[in-house]
Amino acid sequence: MNILEHIREELPWLDANSTYDLTRGKPAPEQLDVVQNIIAQIEIPFELDGIDLRNYGNPEGLPSARKLGASILKSDYDETHALDNSSLTLMHQIVSCSFFLGFKNSKLNSASKIICPVPGYDRHFKLLENFGIEMITVPFQEDGPNLNAIQKILKTEKNVHGMVCVPRHSNPTGHSYSDDNVKRLFELACPHKENFSIFWDNAYACHDLDETIGQTPIDQIAKANDMEHNYFQVGSTSKITLAGAGVSFFSSSKNNLEVFVDFRNAITPGPNKINQGMHVKYFEAVPVEQQMQKLKEIIKPKFELVDQYLKPLQEEGKCTYTKPTGGYFFSFNSSNNNADQIIKYCGDLGLKLLPVGACFPYQDDPDNRNIRLAPTFPDYATLERCLKIFTKVVNHLN
Amino acid sequence: MNILEHIREELPWLDANSTYDLTRGKPAPEQLDVVQNIIAQIEIPFELDGIDLRNYGNPEGLPSARKLGASILKSDYDETHALDNSSLTLMHQIVSCSFFLGFKNSKLNSASKIICPVPGYDRHFKLLENFGIEMITVPFQEDGPNLNAIQKILKTEKNVHGMVCVPRHSNPTGHSYSDDNVKRLFELACPHKENFSIFWDNAYACHDLDETIGQTPIDQIAKANDMEHNYFQVGSTSKITLAGAGVSFFSSSKNNLEVFVDFRNAITPGPNKINQGMHVKYFEAVPVEQQMQKLKEIIKPKFELVDQYLKPLQEEGKCTYTKPTGGYFFSFNSSNNNADQIIKYCGDLGLKLLPVGACFPYQDDPDNRNIRLAPTFPDYATLERCLKIFTKVVNHLN
Repeated sequence: MNILEHIREELPWLDANSTYDLTRGKPAPEQLDVVQNIIAQIEIPFELDGIDLRNYGNPEGLPSARKLGASILKSDYDETHALDNSSLTLMHQIVSCSFFLGFKNSKLNSASKIICPVPGYDRHFKLLENFGIEMITVPFQEDGPNLNAIQKILKTEKNVHGMVCVPRHSNPTGHSYSDDNVKRLFELACPHKENFSIFWDNAYACHDLDETIGQTPIDQIAKANDMEHNYFQVGSTSKITLAGAGVSFFSSSKNNLEVFVDFRNAITPGPNKINQGMHVKYFEAVPVEQQMQKLKEIIKPKFELVDQYLKPLQEEGKCTYTKPTGGYFFSFNSSNNNADQIIKYCGDLGLKLLPVGACFPYQDDPDNRNIRLAPTFPDYATLERCLKIFTKVVNHLN
Repeated sequence: MNILEHIREELPWLDANSTYDLTRGKPAPEQLDVVQNIIAQIEIPFELDGIDLRNYGNPEGLPSARKLGASILKSDYDETHALDNSSLTLMHQIVSCSFFLGFKNSKLNSASKIICPVPGYDRHFKLLENFGIEMITVPFQEDGPNLNAIQKILKTEKNVHGMVCVPRHSNPTGHSYSDDNVKRLFELACPHKENFSIFWDNAYACHDLDETIGQTPIDQIAKANDMEHNYFQVGSTSKITLAGAGVSFFSSSKNNLEVFVDFRNAITPGPNKINQGMHVKYFEAVPVEQQMQKLKEIIKPKFELVDQYLKPLQEEGKCTYTKPTGGYFFSFNSSNNNADQIIKYCGDLGLKLLPVGACFPYQDDPDNRNIRLAPTFPDYATLERCLKIFTKVVNHLN
């Protein structure tokens, strides 16, 4: 009997038609129900802050939406803009602006190289790859990106013009960068600051599930290092309210924001202020902390479940992983350097996983060991079935 | 007494604090009231077409929103995607995709030149300028861009890789391209079709105020010339429902749409489907034709008023202009090549106009004669005051 037949026998509920999916970091319908219940009670605002939300204009966003963004990103109001529905689209526009117009201390070009801690967010890597920007990977140390690796790259490589970071509950590893790590990172980058962009995707700024370290806001660390023009922080409410229908935020130096407004004026007559107004009303009804508490009650048991299934595998030396204190992912590393095989077998059994290398630039996982697990979308019972398939496969292969 | 003192005496209601503005093509609050009255009665849809609108995904947009887009653009459903709130942002993404990844017959690069009929849309020009793309201007003939000028450019210039068009109620001239004009345009471009992009911004597809010529859909003309991969049509509901909070649409060949979905997957986890759903519900309540009729009742008297004020100036040889059959603008050409002066005097009297050259690439109006007038935003009485200031200035200077 081959492995697949074995597992099918062990999991009698498996049939040829069932599909299980741990690929994408999507909120579960139960999370979205929480949001819907609130939104359904809000009247769409057509005027706010004395501004007609129905018309063009206000490229920097509604004042009260900017206030909301500043409270989520822990940034200064004056240095925070509220924009459209996707922080990833914003990152594309920031990179475009750097590439074609340049910010004060950020002038990307086709020879530019960007440091990428790995495993990381697949869409970041694809976005940079599409600009023809070379990505150089660094591993993680316990409290953030590996500083020795960064130091070595900055010493030996030319045209290193930036770094991409998910500083809290990093996608997918769950790392939350310590202040010491970030300060040292800025110190290392400082000699290169005439052209060094720190892309700071704070996608999981308030997505704690367990106690997570406190973090000094990026603008304060940047300013202390005289590098206020070197960071580009983005975030959104996509995983706080509705996925894909949230509001994104951008924080950087005032000078950078001015350049960006000018750039955006050529590519949009202004952000969707109705959606911004809806979000302002939403968080008047439910403060962000209270909202995150409600979502945590749905997500946390799923994270506990993943941990419960992976723990024995780690104890038997078959894998390594760290239970994240928040965010949306688990990052699994197979001890047998056979991620491709695990993914294939899972696929054959109806469990979709991202392809091998998905969390690496150029889809290249040099050790063939990393698999991102996204446990939020399936309901608890379905998640448990996903985990049964996954752990059975690992147990058979490792 | 100088000119300003003269005019101030003739217009006793003018005071130092009043501001009048004919710069931007913004809907009037009365237009937006029409929309608000409908929207306020619609329940936000959270599911449609069997799709959960609250979550990520569906990079091509909601089926029923795509249907709406196809009906507005007169394109095929299969070749139409529904996306986010700005067709201009879409155009930026299409140009980015052509520049960095390339479509089948569209591979822009830093040596590319694009043909631009002038006067044209300022944000198009700024967008292309920011990519470092050279713009070559052509004038208009009665039924569209001047074909002789285009032919000459294609014969004499290298790296001419496309053209940007607003084919119906062109911004700001009001031209609606005839089928003959468009067919000839495709014939001229055909020998260059391996790398030729026709950016077709159909922003005013259904914004007729008077009878306007019928137009064969672009995809049909493109297909007849075996150039289905050479056009990129965009449009939106921004000037049909809410400005800045509408839904944008993209139509092109299936092959191009596939390339674009792949490109978009690196820069967004999907469009705002809640907003798309709202728009689908909106047009279930009020069909597009009925909506445009309501808006026309507000806009048309303003266009009549502009015409009434400009006509005597044209009859006296002081200017030329054409009364548009739709859209948002009048394009005024001073016979004295003194647009800068007219704009300056108007500004001194409190009437804001776009700076000279605004409707030309690189802000260069070689004849110093064109001024775009955007009469939709002010109410009727305020518009009349704007026109009094404007015509007094022209009468004194010309």
